Amino acid sequence: MLNNRTAIVSPNSRLGKNVTIGDFTIVYDNVVLGDDVRVESHCILGYPTPLASGKPLVIGNAAHIRSHSIFYEGSKFGNGLRTGHHVTVRENVDAGTGLQLGTLTDLQGDTKLGDYVRTHSNVHLGKRTNIGNFVWLFPYTVLTNDPHPPSNLLIGVTVEDYAVIATMSCVLPGVRIGARSLVGAHSLVTKDVEPDTVVVGVPAKRLCTTSEIKMKDGTGEPAYPWMRHFQGVYPENVLQEWRAKFGRR
Amino acid sequence: MLNNRTAIVSPNSRLGKNVTIGDFTIVYDNVVLGDDVRVESHCILGYPTPLASGKPLVIGNAAHIRSHSIFYEGSKFGNGLRTGHHVTVRENVDAGTGLQLGTLTDLQGDTKLGDYVRTHSNVHLGKRTNIGNFVWLFPYTVLTNDPHPPSNLLIGVTVEDYAVIATMSCVLPGVRIGARSLVGAHSLVTKDVEPDTVVVGVPAKRLCTTSEIKMKDGTGEPAYPWMRHFQGVYPENVLQEWRAKFGRR
Amino acid sequence: MLNNRTAIVSPNSRLGKNVTIGDFTIVYDNVVLGDDVRVESHCILGYPTPLASGKPLVIGNAAHIRSHSIFYEGSKFGNGLRTGHHVTVRENVDAGTGLQLGTLTDLQGDTKLGDYVRTHSNVHLGKRTNIGNFVWLFPYTVLTNDPHPPSNLLIGVTVEDYAVIATMSCVLPGVRIGARSLVGAHSLVTKDVEPDTVVVGVPAKRLCTTSEIKMKDGTGEPAYPWMRHFQGVYPENVLQEWRAKFGRR
Repeated sequence: MLNNRTAIVSPNSRLGKNVTIGDFTIVYDNVVLGDDVRVESHCILGYPTPLASGKPLVIGNAAHIRSHSIFYEGSKFGNGLRTGHHVTVRENVDAGTGLQLGTLTDLQGDTKLGDYVRTHSNVHLGKRTNIGNFVWLFPYTVLTNDPHPPSNLLIGVTVEDYAVIATMSCVLPGVRIGARSLVGAHSLVTKDVEPDTVVVGVPAKRLCTTSEIKMKDGTGEPAYPWMRHFQGVYPENVLQEWRAKFGRR
Repeated sequence: MLNNRTAIVSPNSRLGKNVTIGDFTIVYDNVVLGDDVRVESHCILGYPTPLASGKPLVIGNAAHIRSHSIFYEGSKFGNGLRTGHHVTVRENVDAGTGLQLGTLTDLQGDTKLGDYVRTHSNVHLGKRTNIGNFVWLFPYTVLTNDPHPPSNLLIGVTVEDYAVIATMSCVLPGVRIGARSLVGAHSLVTKDVEPDTVVVGVPAKRLCTTSEIKMKDGTGEPAYPWMRHFQGVYPENVLQEWRAKFGRR
Repeated sequence: MLNNRTAIVSPNSRLGKNVTIGDFTIVYDNVVLGDDVRVESHCILGYPTPLASGKPLVIGNAAHIRSHSIFYEGSKFGNGLRTGHHVTVRENVDAGTGLQLGTLTDLQGDTKLGDYVRTHSNVHLGKRTNIGNFVWLFPYTVLTNDPHPPSNLLIGVTVEDYAVIATMSCVLPGVRIGARSLVGAHSLVTKDVEPDTVVVGVPAKRLCTTSEIKMKDGTGEPAYPWMRHFQGVYPENVLQEWRAKFGRR
């Protein structure tokens, strides 16, 4: 372990090979890090909570956690986790491979995320959120869970594979955002969104199918499914699958 | 005082019995903490500002301040304060008992809060906000104060007892949110809201009385007043009062 | 340099006269600070990134950077920079004199800002944003850049001199906000805004000219151009110019 002199790392934590812990970072007991994990400065890993029921914080290989981020014990992440700064992740999050969490993102816990999910800055996921694979959540998206706040009834939002929620949109409790759909910016989604559909507004209404949105790059090609043209940082096997499935260019 | 080895605590600060100060936390001179206060790591207490006119930061008994939070001098909190992470609280805040501030909450100062107020994540209260008792502010609520920005005229928002503002709503300067009312998610409140009333939309319009909102737990009982069914963490004397006053079940 | 004992400051950084570095702050190699700069605790300056192409972080004289803030290498600020807490500023930001960034503000990089720009709390500027002089961005403003997210096409927002965007508004990619215009709170701006114009709503529509908004201070004078009455912290030469140009009272 490459441990900066000011980090405070519990001898009970289990760190893989080639792990770096930044200055002024605290690693508690109940932490399992894979190989080649880089934790930056001013972070907290494995923040203790009784709500984790003793489960450790498990982070896969090659993670990169940027500064001032906080991960509670009791959550689990596949390989390739990457975060921005000032991220907070509470207990009982179960995330797949390649999760990216933007700066100031706030995961309240009890959340499932598939593979290659990406939240941009300042995304807030309430408890019991259920996110599929390859989902995009843009800045200031809020997924709620309480149908008549405050109450003890938590009904999470479901976001299906490849769906995209644009900036500053809010989704009401229990709503299902269909696969490959697009929620326009600054919308309030009050009911289920069909697959391959664009909704916009407060409250959000159906605008068109996603294929009717054209690229503004001069080609005029359909902008969706985005898997046909977007590069991102996806591994080659994913891109190959998209070629077969979506006709990736 | 249980002082972690890396904390920097002014000898002039006045700490009660059984106070814990987390690692990498700074406690300035002008700070008065009650008994059994727990301050986590990477925090700043009593941040000096001339706007506090020399008044100390006073925090009551049994407070729990989570990591990376900043409290300026000149503010005052009753017993049982609890915060999330990355909270910022400026000068001249005067809060009652049992205040809870969610992660990333940002209090700009010059604000009065009653007892048992709860802000969820990322709530922003502009200067001169006036909040009653048992008020709920859900994530990304913003209470504004400048009627024609930028100006030197600050007219705060008033939120009366038991009122609830749902996620990502914004209230314009000088507006009064009536007692026991509910502002729906992603609304812009441009004028006063009557007591016991639900408003929604941009701009927000009256939808119904709060009693017309039914529980989604299968009972179909009215969801409001929420004091009839919500558990929360209220002390027994409060719950007893609610039984008498609101017919708590 | 007045270096607090716990700060970690690279000997390769170039600091001016009378610079203060707060506790638990990290200053990397590629940093140039002017005279009389005050950096508070728990900050990171010159965070290394290949996207900066080796360019340093350059901060002018008399800057004041509040705690828990992060500045990447490769950005440049004129004199008099001031920030709130928990600010994140990435690479390739080019800012003029007197920039103020509110608490939790998040600059994604590749952004140009003129002189005396002010962001309030929790403002998010996407890459390729272009901001003029004396612009005001109020809390939770988000300026976007991706016309059909996710894509590789980034088309930034332009905000012209003296324009004001009120709280919790979102501006779509490529939109131009005209000089001295006002975007009302909680609006979604989908197309260009003419100079001296007020727009409000989702989507935002023209409401009136700015001069039709009257002061609520009892005078009933026009509230805009705000440069006629607002004090702020502008230097005397600016105020004199405004007297000549806008009839400042």
